[in-house]
Amino acid sequence: MTGRPGLDQLGLGPGKQTRLHRILFQHGLRNGTALFLPYDQGLEHGPRDFADNPESGDPRYVLQLAVEGGFNGIVLEVGLAEKFFWEYAGEVPLVLKLNGKTDIPPDDQALSSLHATVEDAVRLGADAVGYTLYVGSPAYDRDFATLRSVRADAQRLGIPLVVWSYPRGSAVVAKGGTDSFYEVDYAARTAAEVGADVVKVNFPHPAKQDHVPPQYQGRIDDQQAIDAVVRSAGRTLLLVSGGSRAGDEAMLEKARMSMEAGATGLIFGRNVWQREHDESMRFVARLRDVLEKHPSG
Amino acid sequence: MTGRPGLDQLGLGPGKQTRLHRILFQHGLRNGTALFLPYDQGLEHGPRDFADNPESGDPRYVLQLAVEGGFNGIVLEVGLAEKFFWEYAGEVPLVLKLNGKTDIPPDDQALSSLHATVEDAVRLGADAVGYTLYVGSPAYDRDFATLRSVRADAQRLGIPLVVWSYPRGSAVVAKGGTDSFYEVDYAARTAAEVGADVVKVNFPHPAKQDHVPPQYQGRIDDQQAIDAVVRSAGRTLLLVSGGSRAGDEAMLEKARMSMEAGATGLIFGRNVWQREHDESMRFVARLRDVLEKHPSG
Amino acid sequence: MTGRPGLDQLGLGPGKQTRLHRILFQHGLRNGTALFLPYDQGLEHGPRDFADNPESGDPRYVLQLAVEGGFNGIVLEVGLAEKFFWEYAGEVPLVLKLNGKTDIPPDDQALSSLHATVEDAVRLGADAVGYTLYVGSPAYDRDFATLRSVRADAQRLGIPLVVWSYPRGSAVVAKGGTDSFYEVDYAARTAAEVGADVVKVNFPHPAKQDHVPPQYQGRIDDQQAIDAVVRSAGRTLLLVSGGSRAGDEAMLEKARMSMEAGATGLIFGRNVWQREHDESMRFVARLRDVLEKHPSG
Amino acid sequence: MTGRPGLDQLGLGPGKQTRLHRILFQHGLRNGTALFLPYDQGLEHGPRDFADNPESGDPRYVLQLAVEGGFNGIVLEVGLAEKFFWEYAGEVPLVLKLNGKTDIPPDDQALSSLHATVEDAVRLGADAVGYTLYVGSPAYDRDFATLRSVRADAQRLGIPLVVWSYPRGSAVVAKGGTDSFYEVDYAARTAAEVGADVVKVNFPHPAKQDHVPPQYQGRIDDQQAIDAVVRSAGRTLLLVSGGSRAGDEAMLEKARMSMEAGATGLIFGRNVWQREHDESMRFVARLRDVLEKHPSG
Amino acid sequence: MTGRPGLDQLGLGPGKQTRLHRILFQHGLRNGTALFLPYDQGLEHGPRDFADNPESGDPRYVLQLAVEGGFNGIVLEVGLAEKFFWEYAGEVPLVLKLNGKTDIPPDDQALSSLHATVEDAVRLGADAVGYTLYVGSPAYDRDFATLRSVRADAQRLGIPLVVWSYPRGSAVVAKGGTDSFYEVDYAARTAAEVGADVVKVNFPHPAKQDHVPPQYQGRIDDQQAIDAVVRSAGRTLLLVSGGSRAGDEAMLEKARMSMEAGATGLIFGRNVWQREHDESMRFVARLRDVLEKHPSG
Repeated sequence: MTGRPGLDQLGLGPGKQTRLHRILFQHGLRNGTALFLPYDQGLEHGPRDFADNPESGDPRYVLQLAVEGGFNGIVLEVGLAEKFFWEYAGEVPLVLKLNGKTDIPPDDQALSSLHATVEDAVRLGADAVGYTLYVGSPAYDRDFATLRSVRADAQRLGIPLVVWSYPRGSAVVAKGGTDSFYEVDYAARTAAEVGADVVKVNFPHPAKQDHVPPQYQGRIDDQQAIDAVVRSAGRTLLLVSGGSRAGDEAMLEKARMSMEAGATGLIFGRNVWQREHDESMRFVARLRDVLEKHPSG
Repeated sequence: MTGRPGLDQLGLGPGKQTRLHRILFQHGLRNGTALFLPYDQGLEHGPRDFADNPESGDPRYVLQLAVEGGFNGIVLEVGLAEKFFWEYAGEVPLVLKLNGKTDIPPDDQALSSLHATVEDAVRLGADAVGYTLYVGSPAYDRDFATLRSVRADAQRLGIPLVVWSYPRGSAVVAKGGTDSFYEVDYAARTAAEVGADVVKVNFPHPAKQDHVPPQYQGRIDDQQAIDAVVRSAGRTLLLVSGGSRAGDEAMLEKARMSMEAGATGLIFGRNVWQREHDESMRFVARLRDVLEKHPSG
Repeated sequence: MTGRPGLDQLGLGPGKQTRLHRILFQHGLRNGTALFLPYDQGLEHGPRDFADNPESGDPRYVLQLAVEGGFNGIVLEVGLAEKFFWEYAGEVPLVLKLNGKTDIPPDDQALSSLHATVEDAVRLGADAVGYTLYVGSPAYDRDFATLRSVRADAQRLGIPLVVWSYPRGSAVVAKGGTDSFYEVDYAARTAAEVGADVVKVNFPHPAKQDHVPPQYQGRIDDQQAIDAVVRSAGRTLLLVSGGSRAGDEAMLEKARMSMEAGATGLIFGRNVWQREHDESMRFVARLRDVLEKHPSG
Repeated sequence: MTGRPGLDQLGLGPGKQTRLHRILFQHGLRNGTALFLPYDQGLEHGPRDFADNPESGDPRYVLQLAVEGGFNGIVLEVGLAEKFFWEYAGEVPLVLKLNGKTDIPPDDQALSSLHATVEDAVRLGADAVGYTLYVGSPAYDRDFATLRSVRADAQRLGIPLVVWSYPRGSAVVAKGGTDSFYEVDYAARTAAEVGADVVKVNFPHPAKQDHVPPQYQGRIDDQQAIDAVVRSAGRTLLLVSGGSRAGDEAMLEKARMSMEAGATGLIFGRNVWQREHDESMRFVARLRDVLEKHPSG
Repeated sequence: MTGRPGLDQLGLGPGKQTRLHRILFQHGLRNGTALFLPYDQGLEHGPRDFADNPESGDPRYVLQLAVEGGFNGIVLEVGLAEKFFWEYAGEVPLVLKLNGKTDIPPDDQALSSLHATVEDAVRLGADAVGYTLYVGSPAYDRDFATLRSVRADAQRLGIPLVVWSYPRGSAVVAKGGTDSFYEVDYAARTAAEVGADVVKVNFPHPAKQDHVPPQYQGRIDDQQAIDAVVRSAGRTLLLVSGGSRAGDEAMLEKARMSMEAGATGLIFGRNVWQREHDESMRFVARLRDVLEKHPSG
């Protein structure tokens, strides 16, 4: 979309600009859009996510997919990054996911734990760091404190900061739910206010209106919702998440609406590597078609 | 008001004096009064606050308002300050708001989380820092601990410290409520005792007398209440907050009473940028008229 | 009292000796006794404490009282110390109160929050620091941890440490109450064990015997109680607090018994500045008469 | 198993490679497999574990067993390592167990406490450090935070990190239980994701299927389960724990299945030192037979 | 007992050896045994402990007792050590007790708070530091964390670490109780595992068998119990505590059994200084007779 700001208009220092330029213009379609392959589900959900396509449990398989599919980046937790990324260094940018948790304990006080630092990312040759922020969780103060420290390190070292901005916890469930338009919109803005360079959100569901503020009630269609979320993010580049696996046409339609709204790109994991290899490559090709139609200026 | 102390009588070091002088005498009306434009509501309330005037969701629009309206300062969280302030550097002073929270979780243990440091403020060219203190909250110990560290950094670096001093939490609700005269007066004094250079309070409501101490019971009018609050702040300069949008005449009357009491200025956000552009400029002009009548000596 | 140890018998380093000598022998009656004026009630109780004598809300008024009344020291929180003490520097010693809290939240887990450091005290020219320890509170571990750090800084920098040793919290209420002889005696000893140079206690009430240990049961008169408390403090100098305002003769009698027991002095705030100016000076003169009769050797 | 990666394919630095090489190829069978003797049960369970064979309460006896039995390493907490290991330095590698707890308090919020640092391990001449991670515990955030710091130190100092990855706590009990295939598989992956070089797991029980995800339901035999767990660990070397004492043939069968699945080795404590000396040596000989049949390439 | 290891067989560095040698061979009976006088009860129980013998409230009296009675060390908290020990420097070794608490709040989450550091001990000329560990308390993680830091400092500075290893808290009460053989044995081992040089325990009560593990059930006499506890401590020297005041013959019998078991010494406070002066000296003489019969080799 023509509305996307140039990298030199974001108030970024040279390190962040260099790395975002590498990700957006020297990998993938090289047109300022991005397609990321997240692979931290072994921690977030456990190995059960690999059951549909057992090969996907092997990080080498997924790294290979990222290279073959022409992704703009692969997302790994520190353990896998240490032991597997070195074989693919230079072939695909690494986004080091700094925090994460298992889904075993209940989620009402959701908090994602730090496993690595921005300095680890520098050491491992990553081009960005990822951080999950649970917006609205009763544990927000510890979450924000960790994010502040990560943001400061990222600023100091010139590493772009990607925030997975997810509404979560008991209060969120009580006001619209984790993927309601209200909560997703608030989450996008929160990430922008606290200093994310890139924000990852789920696609908003405007029909989820239980106990949301009046401004989010009434007839709102999907395109209006994602437009608003992109506006709330402002100069924070926005990525839309694929989430759990769903029908192809529905996924592609959401991708089109997101890019039309001004999103910078997509971040699809399970929708990619839970498919058999060739089918996943065909799906990726269709996602790339969408991105190709929305280059940055 | 003649009762306002000069900047050289406040025991401040040269850095704080320089920056307060810039804010109070080199911007706005240049008469020692101040009109601030706060813009952290995207974090505090979410994008719903921008629904009345959708343009207000764009930080550029609000920064432009601050310059056009001749404000003495704009208040931003670190994310927006990083990505948007550079375009307006030098045109309006920046107050970097260091902490904040969403309004999703319940408020009974209210605590505002730190997102940036005083050093961030220096790096970004801010002339002051802002900190929200939830006076009376059961989480006060963590709050005071963070404020102490911010105060020490501000003292060391010569940056004026503006404390948003807000009674909040279950015990406050049980004793008068968040904007009762009793609680606002206590909040003003608390900020002064713990080292604020400037304190922002809500206008006190002397009629709210449920479970307040006897000293706050009986017939007290609004002017008496705001007079007392200014006295409690002592040599801590006092700003009165606009709060949620209300009728013009009521707002202006509170502004007049505040300045009459010896307040240094006003800090009005939603009452300004939730209006359509030209209407907001007309309202700002009326606020400036009030300030013009109460110069500092 | 002849039993009071000399400053050179307390195992103190030269910095602490110098400053205690200045307080005890170069101000006030210059006879080794002390009369302190505490003025942190604006934080501890709020501005309601100033209602009886509205002038007392102005720190300049109270500082002036301290000078006129020949006090050995005035006690201020950091905010008032920063903005007001510079005008009186050299005229009356400053005790910088390092912690404090409001009385809005409930007291069962009492904990006083740190607002300043021993280094702030040095920077501000204070001759001692004050710290409130809530003996017996369920929050004792955080309290002791902060006190340990303050004690270490005070030791390193040679600043005398005055501990407000107050029994407080749910367990104290269940065993005698906050001003029972049992609890006050334990509090005095606790301060001595953990390293106070001076301890401030409330006057003990031996008649409060509900659920106290057998050693504190039976007929014990006030003089026996305060004698025991002074003994428990050992080489930690002891100050008796005035507490809330009470009848003159009762106050003076407690002052006499305290000095007779070997206390070093008195610390009276509300009993002084809640009176009208001339009446307060007359009351102070009577307190000085008591101190004059109990010089240190 | 041929599938085991070489030490030079794990992305390790020279310090970790050197020490793992020493453990795997310069002690024990010197064929890339490992047999460890853990001796931290005096802390984890108390001296009651020594009742069957009272000599085992003496660390010298157990260190002697480790040397005689040709173990690849002995695991000690810091206290015993300090006072006893020096006599056996060079004869058997030391794995310094960094954390631990007693089994006196309830386990629903399980958290193992740190007792020593990676620097202690270096000072004591250890070749690896051990850390217990309670996967799924509600206390996970403090656990992960400590592990992150240990991992960073181990990375900096080149010391291999062995993670005891144990599902534990109320949520684990509710989903399959601590040794269900689902939980053990998740625990193995979690250790790999967060940066373990070696992971110790309990042998998985695929029949425990109460409230486990659908992917872990249905007919799964033991060999399939341990195969999957080894795959989930990826390039993190896997050790299978003996657990509490059990029948010899059952133990040996589990050992065989583990090595067949690609485990690097076994870690048997109580099954060894709770037996009388000569019987324990005979049992160790049978374990070594199993390891001999599964050398690393 | 001949079984006691020599100081050069404990894996200690020269600083710890020097100081333990001074305590064990240059004071008291100079035969490798030890008799310590603890005097932290003013903090742990309050001044009520001094009621039987009021002179004992004065630290000078107790220090004098330690010198006269030929004790191997006196145990003081930092406050008393600072103000009183300098007069007796060189005459009796000082064990600086680093932590402590009052007995006012309930004990179910027992945690002893740190009041001083190992560096304070060095500065004050102490020959050892003392630390109370509440084994089995639900607050164990904070306890172990503090102990770890103390142990590291003691190791670095060469100061012997004496651990008061006390089972305490709700879970302990539910399993045998604080002085059951099971809990005392576990506590001795825990101190050894986490790095104590010397451990102080209460004399075990083998008859307390409610809910203890089967290994601690059945007929066990006192001598068997204390023998086991000394074995569990291994190379950690063991001191047996006197506890609250009891009959002389019972106390002496426990002392004899302890020394027979291989304990290094005794630590008796209230049993000593709660007696009238001359009576206490006679009791000490009888304790010395016991120690004299059990020299170290």
